[in-house]
Amino acid sequence: MRPGGRSNDDWAGVTCVVTGGLGFIGVNLARALVDGGATVRVVDALVPDHGGRADHLDGVAVEAVLVSDIAGPLVGELLDGADVVFNVAGQVSHTASMRDPQQDLYLNATSHATFLDTVRRVVPGARVVYTSTRQVYGRSSAAVVDESHPANPVDVNGVAKLAGEQLHMVYAHAHGLACTALRLTNVYGPRQRLTSDDLGFLPVFLRRALQGEEILIYGDGLQRRDCLHVDDVIVALLAAVDDRAVGQVFNVGHTNTYALREIASMIVEAVGSTGGIGLVPWPDDRARIDIGSFHTGSARIADVLGWRATVELAAGIRDTVAFYQEHGCYLSST
Amino acid sequence: MRPGGRSNDDWAGVTCVVTGGLGFIGVNLARALVDGGATVRVVDALVPDHGGRADHLDGVAVEAVLVSDIAGPLVGELLDGADVVFNVAGQVSHTASMRDPQQDLYLNATSHATFLDTVRRVVPGARVVYTSTRQVYGRSSAAVVDESHPANPVDVNGVAKLAGEQLHMVYAHAHGLACTALRLTNVYGPRQRLTSDDLGFLPVFLRRALQGEEILIYGDGLQRRDCLHVDDVIVALLAAVDDRAVGQVFNVGHTNTYALREIASMIVEAVGSTGGIGLVPWPDDRARIDIGSFHTGSARIADVLGWRATVELAAGIRDTVAFYQEHGCYLSST
Repeated sequence: MRPGGRSNDDWAGVTCVVTGGLGFIGVNLARALVDGGATVRVVDALVPDHGGRADHLDGVAVEAVLVSDIAGPLVGELLDGADVVFNVAGQVSHTASMRDPQQDLYLNATSHATFLDTVRRVVPGARVVYTSTRQVYGRSSAAVVDESHPANPVDVNGVAKLAGEQLHMVYAHAHGLACTALRLTNVYGPRQRLTSDDLGFLPVFLRRALQGEEILIYGDGLQRRDCLHVDDVIVALLAAVDDRAVGQVFNVGHTNTYALREIASMIVEAVGSTGGIGLVPWPDDRARIDIGSFHTGSARIADVLGWRATVELAAGIRDTVAFYQEHGCYLSST
Repeated sequence: MRPGGRSNDDWAGVTCVVTGGLGFIGVNLARALVDGGATVRVVDALVPDHGGRADHLDGVAVEAVLVSDIAGPLVGELLDGADVVFNVAGQVSHTASMRDPQQDLYLNATSHATFLDTVRRVVPGARVVYTSTRQVYGRSSAAVVDESHPANPVDVNGVAKLAGEQLHMVYAHAHGLACTALRLTNVYGPRQRLTSDDLGFLPVFLRRALQGEEILIYGDGLQRRDCLHVDDVIVALLAAVDDRAVGQVFNVGHTNTYALREIASMIVEAVGSTGGIGLVPWPDDRARIDIGSFHTGSARIADVLGWRATVELAAGIRDTVAFYQEHGCYLSST
C-alpha cells in the first residue's frame, strides 16, 4: 500500500513510523496522524538537551513508543509493516554542533545511513519523508533562495544535515527507496522546547517574553527570516507522501519574511510582556555562524505538490503563546 | 612561518604533515616535499584494501611515519610544530562506500572533524590543504563543471567527501583555520594501488593491460573523462599553499577529455598488451552510481593560483606504464 497525496484526515489503515516522535515537530506530526486515523509508531532517542520529552505523547493513541537511537537494534521491529516513515529525528542546534562535531555528524548523518539500511532491509517499499533544513544553504545574497542554490553550510550542523539529506537521495536513486526530503525554514509552534538557548531564536524569544524578561536581539535586528508554524510543516510532511515527490528535495518556507525586531515585537505584543526588547552585540560563537537575512523559496513545492504556508506569523504567534500560557511546564521543565 | 606560492623545490625549513602519506597521492606528495627540502611527517591508517602500503616510503628521508587513524591520540604530537598540513587521507572507493556507508562516513567526514579539532588545538596557524573530489558534483549535463555547480553526489563516498570538504570550510570561516580544498578529477600515475577493482577505472585498466588481460569497459565506452597525472596533482597541492587560496574550494582537472575507449586504447598501446579491449554490460552496482561523461572545469585555479595541468594523457600513461613495468610488486601484492 503506497498512499499518495493524502490530506490530513485520510490516514485510516496506514501504518506510520515517526522518528524523533517525542520532539517538537515529531510529536505534532504523530498527533496529526493519529487524528487522521493512522496507526502510529514512534522512535526517539530522548537525547538530553534536545527537543524530546518522555511525556510528549501521554494520552495520545499511538501504537508504540520506542526510546532508542534510530540506529538501534529494535528499530527494525518497529519498522516492520510500516507504509510511511517520517524521518524527523535529528540534532538541530547549530551552536552544539560546533562544540561537538562528532555527535552532530553521528546524529544527523551516520545514524541515518544505518536507519536507511534498516528501512531497505525491512520495508523497502515504504515511503520515507526526511526533514532537512534551509541551513544547508548557508549565507546567500539571493533575494529568494531556491533548491538550485549551491549548499555552502556555515556550521557543522548544516554540513551534517546536508549529508543526511543526500544519503536519502543516494538511497532513493541508487537503491530505489521512495525518499523525499524537505528543507524546512525556522519552525515555531506548540510543544517546542523553550528552555534551551541552543535551538534557534524563536523559542528563546518566546521563553523570555513569557517569563517577562527582555528579548535580546543580536546586532541591529534587521536581518529577515521566513518562519513557519508547525501546523504548516505537518501539512507539508503529509503532502510529501506523494508519487511526484519521490527522489526529490523541496524547500519549505513562508512567502513572507519579517525582521527579527518585528518578530520580537509580535511576540511581546501577543504575550503582553513588559520585558521589552533590547539590542546587544553579537556573541563571537553566534556571529561566526550567523547567516544574515534569508528567504526560503518555496515555489517548487507549491508547483509540484500544491503546498503553501497558510498561517500568518502574527496569528501563529498568538496561537503559540496561548498554548504555552496554558502549558506552563514548557517553561520550567525539560 | 606561513609559506605561500612555493614552487616544488623551495621547501627548505618547512615542516609538513601528510595524512594518507602511505597512499597513492600521499606518497608521491611526501617524496616531492622531501626532494624540495621539507621536513616531512606522515600519518596513515593503512586501512586494508585502501591505497596505503607499509613499504611505500622505504628509503625516503621522512622525519616520521605514524601508522594511525587521523583521529588517533598520537596525531597531536605529529602535528606539533607543523607549518603545512596536507590532509590527503580518505576512502576513495565508490563501491565500498555503498557496501559500508558507516565506514566511509567515518573515514571521510567524522575522523576529519576530529583531525581538524586537533589541528586547531596544536597548530592553529598551519596551512591545511584538503583533497576533495569532483565526485561531489554527481552527474551533470554541463559541458564543463565549475565550482558554482550544485553538488548532488550519487554515492555515499561523494556525500561523505563533500561533508569532509565542507567541514574544512566551516573550520576556515568559523574558526580561522587556513584551509583550502581541491576537488580532484580522476588521478593516475606511479604508486597507485592496482590490485583492487574498487579504486576507479584507471588502475583497473592499467592492471589488466599489464597482465595481458582484456580491458573490460562498461557500456559503450563513449563516456568522457578528464584525467590527471599525479605529478600535476602534486604541483596543484603545493600551489594551494598560498594566501589567495585560504577558505576556498578549487576544481583540479585537465583541459582535455577522452572517451573511456580512447583511454583504454592508449593504455593497451603503451603496454603493448595483446589482451585488447572489450565492451560489457554495466553491472548493477556500478550503473547505479555511474556519472556518465564529466569534464572538471579548472579555470578558477588557473586564474587564482596559476596552476594548469601540463601532462598530456598519452605521455602520462607511457610514464605510468614504464613505472609499473619496472615495479612489478604493484601487480602482485597489496
